[in-house]
Amino acid sequence: MSEHIESLQRLAEQFGRLQGVGKKSAMRMAFSVLEMDEAKVAEFATAMLDAKERIHACPICGNFTEDEVCYVCQDETRNQKIICVVEDVKSLMSIEKVREYRGVYHVLNGVISPVNGITPDKIRFAELMQRVNTEDIDEVIIATNATPDGEITAMYLSRALRPFEHLRVSRLAYGIPVGSDLEYADEVTLGRALEGRRSLS
Amino acid sequence: MSEHIESLQRLAEQFGRLQGVGKKSAMRMAFSVLEMDEAKVAEFATAMLDAKERIHACPICGNFTEDEVCYVCQDETRNQKIICVVEDVKSLMSIEKVREYRGVYHVLNGVISPVNGITPDKIRFAELMQRVNTEDIDEVIIATNATPDGEITAMYLSRALRPFEHLRVSRLAYGIPVGSDLEYADEVTLGRALEGRRSLS
Repeated sequence: MSEHIESLQRLAEQFGRLQGVGKKSAMRMAFSVLEMDEAKVAEFATAMLDAKERIHACPICGNFTEDEVCYVCQDETRNQKIICVVEDVKSLMSIEKVREYRGVYHVLNGVISPVNGITPDKIRFAELMQRVNTEDIDEVIIATNATPDGEITAMYLSRALRPFEHLRVSRLAYGIPVGSDLEYADEVTLGRALEGRRSLS
Repeated sequence: MSEHIESLQRLAEQFGRLQGVGKKSAMRMAFSVLEMDEAKVAEFATAMLDAKERIHACPICGNFTEDEVCYVCQDETRNQKIICVVEDVKSLMSIEKVREYRGVYHVLNGVISPVNGITPDKIRFAELMQRVNTEDIDEVIIATNATPDGEITAMYLSRALRPFEHLRVSRLAYGIPVGSDLEYADEVTLGRALEGRRSLS
């Protein structure tokens, strides 16, 4: 019946374009909007336009920021000699949540994906090389996802960084998630956990 | 880290206000917006404001509409003597999807809920009585949800409609969902299905 209400249909379509939102959820969200009072809807629309207008990529690391340079790159207490390379800002946020990492970041804005025709020139790879070449970097931690494309990218980066002899290049550890049952770990993960086992004594 | 990007945080909060959207999904949606190009974001914001501005309740039945009267009430091929009473427009949409019902609707905009202090005067109950009193109605189908409040409302309505002797008052049938296993049906539903069993011969 929503086809009878054009503006409702259009709004649901917009919600449906968001990542991970299905048709039914999109319609439910459109209904939610209709249930808000007018001022709240205006606030929502403004928040959307505002965020899009104000937020841009940090010219150094690619993180989102409203300022000229992002809060990580601005922070002088952080170790600017350690760069953690991530696929996207979402990954960066996940690592920040741990509140343990005190280095800086480099957001690739994607991963190398031969299947999808994404070559290194389509991600922020040259920018990373530029940083390693010109800045005084001690370590690059490769924190791409543990997906096939993430792995390919990690391999590619580690090879590209090999010529820098002073540079330590590391990769996030694989293993069983903390708090999980071995029973539910897949064989590949378990294999990697064995391979990467650490001596306790 | 999003607390460092105020406009992102604000946008995520807005998404989080939508029904059924959790904190993590809200942030994912806010990210999705940032990934759209500017024109698309403007389109989204406009769709939101447009829908809110154009859509209002049908003065007859309470359905959403952009026109003066909703498409159901406008439709002369529908039986205006049968009113299906629903809690909200979502329920109306669900029934419309079946494409079997050819009567009209009455949206209550809520249910009677003693626990939440929602009395009949807080929903569109008087409007329903008004219609039954002044229009030539043959049947009222009570299609409130099968929740405790929906049941209370159905009871209340059926009692209120009892004085209209010519009027048939009915309630949606309870029973096992089509395609489902008896194994998964709860006892109450199964009990109702037995109670409402239909003779096949």
